Amino acid sequence: MTSHSPSSSTSAARADGRRPDELRPVRITRGWLDAAEGSVLVEFGGTRVLCAASFTDSVPRWRKGSGEGWVTAEYAMLPRATNTRSDRESVKGRVGGRTHEISRLIGRSLRAVVDVRALGENTIVLDCDVLQADGGTRTAAITGAYVALADAVAWGRRNKKVSTRAEVLTDSVSAVSVGIVDGVPVLDLPYVEDVRAQTDMNVVVTGSGQFVEVQGTAEQKSFDRSELDALLDLALGGTAELARIQAAALAEDGR
Amino acid sequence: MTSHSPSSSTSAARADGRRPDELRPVRITRGWLDAAEGSVLVEFGGTRVLCAASFTDSVPRWRKGSGEGWVTAEYAMLPRATNTRSDRESVKGRVGGRTHEISRLIGRSLRAVVDVRALGENTIVLDCDVLQADGGTRTAAITGAYVALADAVAWGRRNKKVSTRAEVLTDSVSAVSVGIVDGVPVLDLPYVEDVRAQTDMNVVVTGSGQFVEVQGTAEQKSFDRSELDALLDLALGGTAELARIQAAALAEDGR
Amino acid sequence: MTSHSPSSSTSAARADGRRPDELRPVRITRGWLDAAEGSVLVEFGGTRVLCAASFTDSVPRWRKGSGEGWVTAEYAMLPRATNTRSDRESVKGRVGGRTHEISRLIGRSLRAVVDVRALGENTIVLDCDVLQADGGTRTAAITGAYVALADAVAWGRRNKKVSTRAEVLTDSVSAVSVGIVDGVPVLDLPYVEDVRAQTDMNVVVTGSGQFVEVQGTAEQKSFDRSELDALLDLALGGTAELARIQAAALAEDGR
Amino acid sequence: MTSHSPSSSTSAARADGRRPDELRPVRITRGWLDAAEGSVLVEFGGTRVLCAASFTDSVPRWRKGSGEGWVTAEYAMLPRATNTRSDRESVKGRVGGRTHEISRLIGRSLRAVVDVRALGENTIVLDCDVLQADGGTRTAAITGAYVALADAVAWGRRNKKVSTRAEVLTDSVSAVSVGIVDGVPVLDLPYVEDVRAQTDMNVVVTGSGQFVEVQGTAEQKSFDRSELDALLDLALGGTAELARIQAAALAEDGR
Amino acid sequence: MTSHSPSSSTSAARADGRRPDELRPVRITRGWLDAAEGSVLVEFGGTRVLCAASFTDSVPRWRKGSGEGWVTAEYAMLPRATNTRSDRESVKGRVGGRTHEISRLIGRSLRAVVDVRALGENTIVLDCDVLQADGGTRTAAITGAYVALADAVAWGRRNKKVSTRAEVLTDSVSAVSVGIVDGVPVLDLPYVEDVRAQTDMNVVVTGSGQFVEVQGTAEQKSFDRSELDALLDLALGGTAELARIQAAALAEDGR
Amino acid sequence: MTSHSPSSSTSAARADGRRPDELRPVRITRGWLDAAEGSVLVEFGGTRVLCAASFTDSVPRWRKGSGEGWVTAEYAMLPRATNTRSDRESVKGRVGGRTHEISRLIGRSLRAVVDVRALGENTIVLDCDVLQADGGTRTAAITGAYVALADAVAWGRRNKKVSTRAEVLTDSVSAVSVGIVDGVPVLDLPYVEDVRAQTDMNVVVTGSGQFVEVQGTAEQKSFDRSELDALLDLALGGTAELARIQAAALAEDGR
Repeated sequence: MTSHSPSSSTSAARADGRRPDELRPVRITRGWLDAAEGSVLVEFGGTRVLCAASFTDSVPRWRKGSGEGWVTAEYAMLPRATNTRSDRESVKGRVGGRTHEISRLIGRSLRAVVDVRALGENTIVLDCDVLQADGGTRTAAITGAYVALADAVAWGRRNKKVSTRAEVLTDSVSAVSVGIVDGVPVLDLPYVEDVRAQTDMNVVVTGSGQFVEVQGTAEQKSFDRSELDALLDLALGGTAELARIQAAALAEDGR
Repeated sequence: MTSHSPSSSTSAARADGRRPDELRPVRITRGWLDAAEGSVLVEFGGTRVLCAASFTDSVPRWRKGSGEGWVTAEYAMLPRATNTRSDRESVKGRVGGRTHEISRLIGRSLRAVVDVRALGENTIVLDCDVLQADGGTRTAAITGAYVALADAVAWGRRNKKVSTRAEVLTDSVSAVSVGIVDGVPVLDLPYVEDVRAQTDMNVVVTGSGQFVEVQGTAEQKSFDRSELDALLDLALGGTAELARIQAAALAEDGR
Repeated sequence: MTSHSPSSSTSAARADGRRPDELRPVRITRGWLDAAEGSVLVEFGGTRVLCAASFTDSVPRWRKGSGEGWVTAEYAMLPRATNTRSDRESVKGRVGGRTHEISRLIGRSLRAVVDVRALGENTIVLDCDVLQADGGTRTAAITGAYVALADAVAWGRRNKKVSTRAEVLTDSVSAVSVGIVDGVPVLDLPYVEDVRAQTDMNVVVTGSGQFVEVQGTAEQKSFDRSELDALLDLALGGTAELARIQAAALAEDGR
Repeated sequence: MTSHSPSSSTSAARADGRRPDELRPVRITRGWLDAAEGSVLVEFGGTRVLCAASFTDSVPRWRKGSGEGWVTAEYAMLPRATNTRSDRESVKGRVGGRTHEISRLIGRSLRAVVDVRALGENTIVLDCDVLQADGGTRTAAITGAYVALADAVAWGRRNKKVSTRAEVLTDSVSAVSVGIVDGVPVLDLPYVEDVRAQTDMNVVVTGSGQFVEVQGTAEQKSFDRSELDALLDLALGGTAELARIQAAALAEDGR
Repeated sequence: MTSHSPSSSTSAARADGRRPDELRPVRITRGWLDAAEGSVLVEFGGTRVLCAASFTDSVPRWRKGSGEGWVTAEYAMLPRATNTRSDRESVKGRVGGRTHEISRLIGRSLRAVVDVRALGENTIVLDCDVLQADGGTRTAAITGAYVALADAVAWGRRNKKVSTRAEVLTDSVSAVSVGIVDGVPVLDLPYVEDVRAQTDMNVVVTGSGQFVEVQGTAEQKSFDRSELDALLDLALGGTAELARIQAAALAEDGR
Repeated sequence: MTSHSPSSSTSAARADGRRPDELRPVRITRGWLDAAEGSVLVEFGGTRVLCAASFTDSVPRWRKGSGEGWVTAEYAMLPRATNTRSDRESVKGRVGGRTHEISRLIGRSLRAVVDVRALGENTIVLDCDVLQADGGTRTAAITGAYVALADAVAWGRRNKKVSTRAEVLTDSVSAVSVGIVDGVPVLDLPYVEDVRAQTDMNVVVTGSGQFVEVQGTAEQKSFDRSELDALLDLALGGTAELARIQAAALAEDGR
């Protein structure tokens, strides 16, 4: 288990005492499940997401014979992950728009660092289930899912399902939320800040600092070019730190 | 957190070295979630179920004005709780028969020890989500859900939603699986025993030793009266021990 | 058509004048449908269930090539089978938990007396549709479905789909409800007793008196070991009589 | 029970020996269910439909306060009503187009003879479930449902839910199928004729001989005006006879 | 684009000044979509339906190897095609009965003039989407869909998917609504007349004047034989004119 | 109708001859539907979207009594809007993730320029149905929906549903796609460029040049800060031009 509590800051104006450019304590616990080919319990402060990677040596029908693999993701939230209980999507009989949207985002983000040809005709499904939600669940999910994915790829290698000649993972990938709260651009928003943010942005960045996704939304007030620039700066700093935490977690002895 | 590892036995014939009448190590962790009015991570060996109790001060429409409360439960399994991944019921768009059946069983079992009049017009929903499945998920869920329910009732008392004059919980309730494996009646079956059992029974028992539910199924071979009696004996012993573990957990300082 | 009205009793305390250990009049009408390979209209007093057996010479995909057959069941109720009309599950767009649960119970009960290898790669589906419900619909369904199944197996023999060398049916199977009403254990509960029962149990038993399923539920009050024993005694007596009625029905000239 | 077997004909060219203008034996059994306010088992030859009328003293929300009642219908088929088994619509999770279409047709046909103002703010739902299908299920359903409806209206009168001052039923209504088979216009087609018909028409007619619905479809060959006229003549003859059979059934002593 | 505004009449009693036997202005615009193999925007007065024909060189599974093609249709309405907005069927999660009914009607009507053997193992799907509804949407859809179908067949010929030896289309087909409004039989009812009609009929007729479908419904009052005859006369006149308009549209230079 | 064909450029490298910073011909046709309170057919080159605004003088339950109105949107595509036919979401029984995502984006974008308090307790629903898709359907939808929204607000004013004292629309809003194709940042991508883009971004901007949404996705290759800056520059230029086109359309005499 890898745990990082940033050193305390001097000029804290945030409810939890963090500096504007400071992450919440991040914890990555590998091997949380016995059977999954990769599994991670990732925590960004009070947000806890269980990321399970399932490896199968086949591909969806439309990929058969292509020589290429497939990586996809499904995101969901337990009914009492939040302050008040939500109805289950299974009971409602349909997956909501937000769930769909985030599942697609996680899948795209991971595929951005996967060489599907090197993966061969194998599929890895990442299930990201939010056990407790305190803001930033999608960014925690992407960050944890990358580590579970890396473990599943290693499992594929050890079990001779994946060739060792080519690199399946071309880079690492992590994500963080940024936003403007009370006029101040801040990094990694917990729920209490999220609901008050005038602008909210999720940024997905590779280990080498390239953008994969930039999704900014004016929640209460539209934003100008300089605000956008400030948010992007914060996000690049945050994801650089997350990349270091991911690397440290993967450097530990696997499960 | 309350953890009980039974003392090792002398005549172990089971794969995990247990005596026929021995429970797996049971662990009950209260307060696993920050927001839920009651929450328990319950573990029966490798089986891990997160039980969240949500308290609301209203009742379903058909109960309005009755002066009585309501307790219900929903059971579900994460897609990779099992050895191989299962499709999500939310994605399939319908809740499966097994899920329905177990949700109803948990609800009925808990209501057997609830005085709905003493609860008043409040509802407590128990969400039992299986994070890892290694046999006995429904019995672990009932056992853990009772503790989460007790915490939610206490929360209702502390917050003046429930009167302190009458006892809402008339008894405790726990559950255990029993079965005949290779001709031998055994207690608390893990997955490897479950798939080989010729008969499989789930028994729900109150703290005072009364039956709430008896569900026995001939999986491979029908069973006679003496086999049924042996299984019921084992179940009464197992649930008596579970009742002690529940009491010990609730005696600890709450979250 | 086979019809059995038990001789009148002397000490009747039940609303319909039956002794505690007495079945309602049971009627089994074979060949109720022209096209089905087996069909039975079974009546337990006012409860009427139409059981249709459909034989097809193939098996579900997951059974292909196994040399084994498959038997399954679907239970449903017409909207006005009950005192007040219920909405159709087809219109609601989902099968309810109770329906699922009973369908699974009927299928398991029948499979307990089927040698799937002797059946060969054939499937028999039992559709059990409740035309009128007056308590005990699931036990009537199992009892009638066994007779329809026997007719469908005979059809398979006559039409050379099933080998005549091995016995497909290893035993007969029937079911009955028992319960404690006003403190008295009674057999075969009609609706008016069912709603007042403190404990309710459905028991499925083979022709040779072995248990297949035991499902007991404390509806209003948990039950102790001696009550459980009394209920099991009643159930064994009732199913023994049902087995005789089934045999008599099958001994008549088929359609 | 009212049963009508038409006298045998001299020039029979049809498989079952009927004249072109002859109905199959029609049987109407009232009071088939104990609890429904009206219920009829109607048989047109081998076609058997159970029609249950449910009376409730309220109306759908959009009718509230209008002083007018509502009559509606739902049609469905048991899975093994036909030669080969069909999947249940409840299991498929959606009602098929044909089912919808027929339900709407039955409802419209009955409403054509109902004075909704005289009915008052009450609703009668007609459930028409096909137990066995041998052609003409929708026409048998309409013909039987009218009788069940009449019984439910009478029930409403006896129970003071409906005023006795105005006539709720302004006329009777029945329906029959007609078609051109091998170039010959024939009345009341069983399944074997239905599949060979080049044109198929369902006609709904009041007791006084007015058209309520005319639905003609060229199945294999379009039809000209004279063929259409011949089919309408047959239909008017058939429905006149059905009106007499309905009246005879209602003249018998009710259940 | 082909546009026909009938010459003004002398004795107009209808709200829009038309004679009882007069069509609304009909406009058929071919090639409205760039990619579809056939596409028509058809207008009957204010009713506007976009008909798109999609040609694929395969057939549904149950037709494979038959040497025969398949033609089918799907009808739908945009949410604000009507005076007040309707919910989307995609959002409601189910296709309504009316939609199903009309889709099936359009498909049957077109197949009445298609020689599926001459089409070969190809499928043509007609999507008829109502952009604006002012009465007669199903009849406009059939009339426009025939033209789109003809263009798709021609596309199949040009692209060597369909043999040029046999005629795929054995005739043309069009449809019109007729009804009795204020006691007067009238042709091609707009919405304001439709809601007041006592009887409403949709008639589908081939170019050679044979009936394909006759669907008459007593909306407020049943109708007698002479009224039916008057409506059929009007419908034959209207469809004869529509057949001429279709022919004129197809005679123009295609896209 | 307002139509803008940008003047031809000198250094065109794009398939359709446009400069990298040039929009496709944009056409906005107001009043396309007779009944809708606002309606626009918007065209960006071959992309055609019908935007209908429905005004109702009530709000969803959760807004009742707040004094605030609500604006929401639903996006959908006709099955043959694309090169090959897609199945209907109504027939599949569920709305897909992409549809959900875009509907939510349109709704958020419009709400960014709406003062819900000035709107009062009224709801405006924007239905954006893609009749033909050639890239940029969501950006065309937002751009057209704003104009339909403005017309619906004006309708509300004329009909005294909305007060004339406060401004409901605080600004205008439009959207455009930008992307990197063959290494060159370009504006307003048609389908052929969209499928080849290495990075794809949709940008929503107010009339005063503030960002409302920035959604950038690395389709084939992640992107760096300078590429992001180039794309944002293009988007600001494009949306400034769209704002002028919207203003010109609204300056014309309404319907």
